[in-house]
Amino acid sequence: MNIKDIISNIEPADKEVFRQAQERTANLIMPPRALGRLNDIGEKICSIQRTMKPKVDKRMVFVMAGDHGIVEERVAAFPQEVTGQMMGAFVAGLASINVLSRQAKSKVLVADIGAVCDVNAVPADPDNTFVVKKIRKGTANFTKGAAMTREEAEKCIMAGFEIADEMIKRYDLNLIATGDMGIGNTTPSSAIGAVFTGETAEVMTGFGSGIDNDALKRKIDVIKRGIELNKPDKSDALDVLSKVGGLEIGAIAGVILAGAYHKIPVLVDGIISAAGALIAYGLCPVAVEYMISGHKSVEPGQIKMLQYMGLEPLVDLGLRLGEGTGAVMAMHSVEAGVRVITEISTFAEAGVSTKEM
Amino acid sequence: MNIKDIISNIEPADKEVFRQAQERTANLIMPPRALGRLNDIGEKICSIQRTMKPKVDKRMVFVMAGDHGIVEERVAAFPQEVTGQMMGAFVAGLASINVLSRQAKSKVLVADIGAVCDVNAVPADPDNTFVVKKIRKGTANFTKGAAMTREEAEKCIMAGFEIADEMIKRYDLNLIATGDMGIGNTTPSSAIGAVFTGETAEVMTGFGSGIDNDALKRKIDVIKRGIELNKPDKSDALDVLSKVGGLEIGAIAGVILAGAYHKIPVLVDGIISAAGALIAYGLCPVAVEYMISGHKSVEPGQIKMLQYMGLEPLVDLGLRLGEGTGAVMAMHSVEAGVRVITEISTFAEAGVSTKEM
Repeated sequence: MNIKDIISNIEPADKEVFRQAQERTANLIMPPRALGRLNDIGEKICSIQRTMKPKVDKRMVFVMAGDHGIVEERVAAFPQEVTGQMMGAFVAGLASINVLSRQAKSKVLVADIGAVCDVNAVPADPDNTFVVKKIRKGTANFTKGAAMTREEAEKCIMAGFEIADEMIKRYDLNLIATGDMGIGNTTPSSAIGAVFTGETAEVMTGFGSGIDNDALKRKIDVIKRGIELNKPDKSDALDVLSKVGGLEIGAIAGVILAGAYHKIPVLVDGIISAAGALIAYGLCPVAVEYMISGHKSVEPGQIKMLQYMGLEPLVDLGLRLGEGTGAVMAMHSVEAGVRVITEISTFAEAGVSTKEM
Repeated sequence: MNIKDIISNIEPADKEVFRQAQERTANLIMPPRALGRLNDIGEKICSIQRTMKPKVDKRMVFVMAGDHGIVEERVAAFPQEVTGQMMGAFVAGLASINVLSRQAKSKVLVADIGAVCDVNAVPADPDNTFVVKKIRKGTANFTKGAAMTREEAEKCIMAGFEIADEMIKRYDLNLIATGDMGIGNTTPSSAIGAVFTGETAEVMTGFGSGIDNDALKRKIDVIKRGIELNKPDKSDALDVLSKVGGLEIGAIAGVILAGAYHKIPVLVDGIISAAGALIAYGLCPVAVEYMISGHKSVEPGQIKMLQYMGLEPLVDLGLRLGEGTGAVMAMHSVEAGVRVITEISTFAEAGVSTKEM
């Protein structure tokens, strides 16, 4: 199987089930659509899973990790070895994504797609999986040439797809989420966003994990120079990924394609996951019908990227961490949306008056 | 015990524990405060419960019901008997608040504080409680005089307090939420909001459960006339409640005071609960330290009321239902905030590098 095979097997969500779901929402004992986004989500999940009785109880977040040559330009607040250290913390179950996933009853998969350091770790927790599919040890500095080759870009997408495909089949997953770890990875994410949306680097770029104003200026400059030098072709998502992208970003695109391929909803985390979503969207626009944006990130570029794809974030908790934390937090709202459409009575079922004054 | 006794026993949240909590947040393995509102919430709960190991696992939402004489003015989209029918649906476990509470592992208490109809219902579900403490059968039309007497206003606050006080002691609750049912109750809520915030009726008034533009004009006019006629004194919360308030709104104020009295966090639902919160705040400003706004309602007045008290809503899911649904949805974020501060490792504990480049 290659990317072309995957894409040709991705079908739109089911419009007839969506219509049925809207009809049920209209009859629930509440004023019309009074549960707002929860009504929307419930209907979307019905149409994705092609049933009026969708389930979202088998969950996994895919935390894709990789390093970035661009950190040479001093655009990140932490040293590169932190990518490996944080992977270790994820596998040991100590980090934010582990804690929030326990609450959300989501399994956690950590994959090393391209970290500079190697991590030798065995998960203690049975709900935790660690996979190494390293395409290369970090990308190249994209102010000096392409971040990776086109072949490597394909490989990291396929790595993400294959990892998710295997897990979806093994655990019969019905709700998946994307996450990331990679020191410096807001830089390629903002670059990808700028290429697709046409917005300036100034608009698309934020403080990442906490750089200062000088570093922000460098980061904006680096993104401009990277785009000028490499001239990524926005009509060719693989070209964009290879020139200004990241290995874990490609893998996230692959995870999203796997969700769409298997007809299950994919919760997209913050700006790095949005960049992965843009790559998936560029390859296969209909895949967006399987995406749900988990949250609005503090990073300013993310909302532009979501708007470009017609997505609206579910919650805004002021998060700027990544790891998949915002996507996993949104699992509660997704479950609520499913419960709303499957468990709340209709006016007729409950014997409540509908007549208006 | 009377309202004065309650208020004199409400203490501020603990500033020293808050400081300790902020210190722990600063050392968690993430960039500084990268979990945004979740960091804030975790610290607030620590300071409310006076411990670095807070718990929010014993939960109840208090759904206070009452009717409103103001519906004579045709300001509501549904007939008054729906208040009783919906109480029946809550007790039978069929409605939105039941479904979302099951997900959030929250008990549900429904109290008839002043419905016009009597409901004879016995909860089938052991996590469901129905209480009747009817102060009167609906308020009076406040365009013709006070909605209720000052004595009745006191009684409904005490009813809410006593109900919550009993449940907090019986179940050792550590997280409570407010909710409401009452056809027409956005009208007194907007009126209370206008009185306290000083905003115009136009700014404070919305479409409630779905009225049309003509009804919205009537609703705004009714609120103006009610305030002009009754001249509620904003320095006297009981006066405001009695003149343009509602029975369930008073009871919500009582529930909030009970939370503050017992030093447990209170999740405040949408605009009707915000009106109850304003009454509690008017009586006892320090009670606001125990309040957490669950969500941003579609009703435009709510955010003004929250801002007046210095509260910021946790999530925005486009809800406009009431019942406590937004407050119960926010329980997931509150639990996450507590898990973040109690379960995530510090840099030192996890052996992750903190040094910045």
